[in-house]
Amino acid sequence: MPRIDIETLETRSGCSYPHPFKEVCLGATWRKLGDAAGLTDFGVNLVRLPPGKWASQRHWHTHEDEFVWVLEGEVVLVEDGGETVLRAGDCAAWKAGVPDGHHLQNRSGADAVYLEVGSRRPDTDACDYPDIDMVAGPDGYRHRDGRPYPED
Amino acid sequence: MPRIDIETLETRSGCSYPHPFKEVCLGATWRKLGDAAGLTDFGVNLVRLPPGKWASQRHWHTHEDEFVWVLEGEVVLVEDGGETVLRAGDCAAWKAGVPDGHHLQNRSGADAVYLEVGSRRPDTDACDYPDIDMVAGPDGYRHRDGRPYPED
Repeated sequence: MPRIDIETLETRSGCSYPHPFKEVCLGATWRKLGDAAGLTDFGVNLVRLPPGKWASQRHWHTHEDEFVWVLEGEVVLVEDGGETVLRAGDCAAWKAGVPDGHHLQNRSGADAVYLEVGSRRPDTDACDYPDIDMVAGPDGYRHRDGRPYPED
Repeated sequence: MPRIDIETLETRSGCSYPHPFKEVCLGATWRKLGDAAGLTDFGVNLVRLPPGKWASQRHWHTHEDEFVWVLEGEVVLVEDGGETVLRAGDCAAWKAGVPDGHHLQNRSGADAVYLEVGSRRPDTDACDYPDIDMVAGPDGYRHRDGRPYPED
């Protein structure tokens, strides 16, 4: 059955970032639509972002394309060039390898709901977080000097 | 600017299938959101499917994952196992290589609008159309006995 029964999917939460970078992201929840259908080329998540929360730290991927489509509410897209409000019916995308850190913040008083799509290049992808002392690769999160973050 | 200004994107139409398979698909229009942002790992199209039209002939891909999210209206998903109505807020996905021909038909009286996402494997992907005498590969559309279709 290719139709995905969204309501039956596990609602996930949490954040793998080390302290103190994780706190502002805790509260978001998502359902893994692509995984539910066995997709492996790209992932599709249905994300709910509560007021005051960030979807991630500002980041850019070396090898993974990303796309978002806003379904409900609004988010603020922050990038090097400034800020842009994205509302229901708006979309944005980021080509892998473009070193423009970006993320979504919910500054509104209501939940924002959006689809996020990302290609899957786990063997090659790395991620840079330009605002903070953190980079990520296949071996996890590290300081910029190469020291790994302790798990917490 | 990662935000995609949808209204400025070219609205595309047409169908590359040979006659007589193209006629039922003519009328659909789409905007290439992923291309607009330079994405290459996967494509994202915003599709408008008028009443009575099919999004494609029933097909399955050997090497490309697919995903759709219905934004407005409703479509009927047809697959080997039967038919399923997908309405706004519903989604479906198809793993590459699963030989279950599928397509979307608009049997309603109003346009249906949906997002379609597909991975890009143009060098390896082939497509089978189980209801008709047609297969597709990097060299275009062919009869099942290997003869190419004339362009029309």
